[in-house]
Amino acid sequence: MKRIEVVQNILEANESIAAQNQHLLDKHKVFAINIMSSPGAGKTSLILQTIAKLKDKLKIAVIEGDVASTLDAEKVKNEATAVVQITTRNMPESCTLIAATLEPALKKLPLETIDLLLIENVGNLICPSEFILGEHRRVVISSLPEGDDKPTKYPMIFTDADVVLINKLDLLPYLDFDISAFRRAVEGLNPKVKVFQLSCKTGVGIESWCSWLLNEFNAHKT
Amino acid sequence: MKRIEVVQNILEANESIAAQNQHLLDKHKVFAINIMSSPGAGKTSLILQTIAKLKDKLKIAVIEGDVASTLDAEKVKNEATAVVQITTRNMPESCTLIAATLEPALKKLPLETIDLLLIENVGNLICPSEFILGEHRRVVISSLPEGDDKPTKYPMIFTDADVVLINKLDLLPYLDFDISAFRRAVEGLNPKVKVFQLSCKTGVGIESWCSWLLNEFNAHKT
Repeated sequence: MKRIEVVQNILEANESIAAQNQHLLDKHKVFAINIMSSPGAGKTSLILQTIAKLKDKLKIAVIEGDVASTLDAEKVKNEATAVVQITTRNMPESCTLIAATLEPALKKLPLETIDLLLIENVGNLICPSEFILGEHRRVVISSLPEGDDKPTKYPMIFTDADVVLINKLDLLPYLDFDISAFRRAVEGLNPKVKVFQLSCKTGVGIESWCSWLLNEFNAHKT
Repeated sequence: MKRIEVVQNILEANESIAAQNQHLLDKHKVFAINIMSSPGAGKTSLILQTIAKLKDKLKIAVIEGDVASTLDAEKVKNEATAVVQITTRNMPESCTLIAATLEPALKKLPLETIDLLLIENVGNLICPSEFILGEHRRVVISSLPEGDDKPTKYPMIFTDADVVLINKLDLLPYLDFDISAFRRAVEGLNPKVKVFQLSCKTGVGIESWCSWLLNEFNAHKT
């Protein structure tokens, strides 16, 4: 019982800091996306493809969340307007970004010069679903090799997503993955969700995802 | 500070219950394996291949840990001597099995008739590394599509593993995955670890893994 109370307190405190983060982002007209997935589903590749496609239209910054290492921040640093790394290994919540870990990272960014902030969460399909950060949209990447049963086995993260991206479409010929069954399972949990199919390796489908993102950015600004 | 103390208390309580679990397993001469990985890396497929290979030599039971659904327990139930499902969705630690959630599951198994217990943990590379369950060996599966940087990005789970299995070897021709670099990274974190390469889809490498497991079982018994 005591443990459940502690969890409740942490989640309430998180919501309040997330609201402050969103207020800070809104003050500077920064549109923020929280990108979540299993380890290795393609979060960094999606960020690189998105920057390549939209960098002439938007100033894009990245916050990289990892348990350990700065590998992803190094991949992104020459492409983005600004990058901040958060390393969660020695934090009380090492399995996800939380609003309180995002807050100091936001303060390190030149927010007044940024249009779009891509937040790469820690690779995990469970913990990130519990913690909002102050983002405007929540994106879940699910890659084909993980299997088409993931929405049924990890429902919470799919239920709260604005977009689900089915990545690694280039591997479809070598896998047993039923795209229709996957889409039905996601839409059953979350009727309003947008689903896109893409390959961050070949670039297939990146155009549609980036058009959606640009539309959302413009709609949010006005 | 208070939060860190709470985490510390949970981990200490976990160690004590894990010791009781191991005592119960030892009393009944059951050898227990904790199988951990990202979502969709192949834990259930490994369990099915292992049972197929060893069922004439050992009575094998399975504990399935999932956030939601009984999909994996259904796949395994006709193959194993006994199966128990643990669903963590509404538990305080939904992102991993812990010793206290294993305890009632152990009591549902006919331990006196079982030789080998395969525990499929929740799909997650972070939380399961913190919680021992009472198992005798810890196995991590890392699948090729996740990328060869996983040991650097999620070091804790690889550091404490007895075995690392590199799965989905059948996909190697279609991916950029440097097996030597992956092995060097794992062995750098954990010089005593055993590493096997296999494909649970084609069966390649299952023989070597099962020989190792049978040897460990026999060495533990004597």
